[in-house]
Amino acid sequence: MNRQKLISEIRRKRSFLCVGLDSDPLKLPAHIAQDSDGVLAFNKAIIDATAPYAVAYKPNAAFYEAMGSKGIEALEATVAYLQNHYPECMVILDAKRGDIGNTSGLYARAAFDQMGVDAITVAPYMGIDSVEPFLGYPEKWVVLLALTSNSGSSDFQQLDLIEGGKLYEQVLRTSQKWATKESMMYVVGATRAEFLEDVRKIVPDHFLLVPGVGAQGGSLEEVSKYGMTPECGLLVNSSRGIIFASQGEDFAEVAGAKARELQEEMSGYLSQYAGI
Amino acid sequence: MNRQKLISEIRRKRSFLCVGLDSDPLKLPAHIAQDSDGVLAFNKAIIDATAPYAVAYKPNAAFYEAMGSKGIEALEATVAYLQNHYPECMVILDAKRGDIGNTSGLYARAAFDQMGVDAITVAPYMGIDSVEPFLGYPEKWVVLLALTSNSGSSDFQQLDLIEGGKLYEQVLRTSQKWATKESMMYVVGATRAEFLEDVRKIVPDHFLLVPGVGAQGGSLEEVSKYGMTPECGLLVNSSRGIIFASQGEDFAEVAGAKARELQEEMSGYLSQYAGI
Repeated sequence: MNRQKLISEIRRKRSFLCVGLDSDPLKLPAHIAQDSDGVLAFNKAIIDATAPYAVAYKPNAAFYEAMGSKGIEALEATVAYLQNHYPECMVILDAKRGDIGNTSGLYARAAFDQMGVDAITVAPYMGIDSVEPFLGYPEKWVVLLALTSNSGSSDFQQLDLIEGGKLYEQVLRTSQKWATKESMMYVVGATRAEFLEDVRKIVPDHFLLVPGVGAQGGSLEEVSKYGMTPECGLLVNSSRGIIFASQGEDFAEVAGAKARELQEEMSGYLSQYAGI
Repeated sequence: MNRQKLISEIRRKRSFLCVGLDSDPLKLPAHIAQDSDGVLAFNKAIIDATAPYAVAYKPNAAFYEAMGSKGIEALEATVAYLQNHYPECMVILDAKRGDIGNTSGLYARAAFDQMGVDAITVAPYMGIDSVEPFLGYPEKWVVLLALTSNSGSSDFQQLDLIEGGKLYEQVLRTSQKWATKESMMYVVGATRAEFLEDVRKIVPDHFLLVPGVGAQGGSLEEVSKYGMTPECGLLVNSSRGIIFASQGEDFAEVAGAKARELQEEMSGYLSQYAGI
């Protein structure tokens, strides 16, 4: 999916919502089997209920890998379901991969050729040759970790460098030499919205994938206020706050209602902060 | 596997060799099917031929993920084969995982409960709560990335910090507060053996997993000279230099011979530098 198509979808749905498919089989509603078949059925129902309000889905690889090869089958089937029924939605594999060049090449093959997702989250620690192999695919995206929303982000990401700025700022600066805004986004956590202002000084136009709204405590309004560009430039993720909002047989209906609430709030911020 | 058992195996086999199972199906010998069944058959033959000379095996997750769920089945079967036939060998899943706490917990469940490996490589960028969930398993190991052997390691790992030292040195220092030498090792690349002296000033006793000997150009003698401790303290990995040493029907035999060459060289360095 290219950038223009993503922006068109955001305008059409008046939403920049990404639904995180963190589908832990141990947390499914009681009437659904706690196995990979149950996860797939759960995902399909969640997707059908939320698709009118979402422009992206983000399955989290860990939750599927924890079920072994059967879990990967459920992940593959989830991605295929999205592609067949909702091809207008971006699919982001949240996998935080990164390795030496030839190995990153295999991770890219796994995500883009084998799984067929549009984007994958990548960790920057190993530098350029760990990221470049993901960049050779037309209309595919790298979503590079910059500033994450967990407490441990202060351990290394926020260290001050002798050449100036913090490590996560250097990641933003250096990686802009590797790819344009057409094929790279950044993960920037929402728990400290004031950081978004600093981030926008370094990357004024790139899309940011913002986790941490909802269960992790960030404010959607602050994220919109400090992070939005005239083209929106944001994908805001919510996982547990949508998919596990109800543990009953009405889980999909409640998930749809939660997604709609967020979409309506987002529609207001698109008018207010992007003039869209 | 605990530290004492690992050291005993190193003494018994007079080897600190880790064989990297980077089993790309597209690079298998011509007489083996280029699919997940072929990879499993290839791995079993490589393992049988090299086990007398190796104390650890390191399957690289990317190479299996690139085959989708069938690839993960081949990975699971490879790990089971090692556990059933060579339980004295450590199995390290090279996956370079790392995410927020609840997600890292799922990656730990995937590696240690579902797959049953002894150790997993983990990326430090997201800090303590991305690493801690891997540390709650008795006799399991985190192998944390510190200084990798690829050229991109200079992009971020070697940046100078205001509080002193380079980023990778800070990773070594900070992470020692998270776990002891009984459950944490570090990845330190072999392409710049002089760095090993600096690393040993910060982590004098921890095991180091050293990739980059052989195809990536590092010298086994220099690694041993600068990195070895009185208990050895090293696992040196070789992947392509062993498993793809021959493309013919004799691939396993040649792999065994290459592993034996390395083991014999290692035996000499154990005498010379560790007094073992």
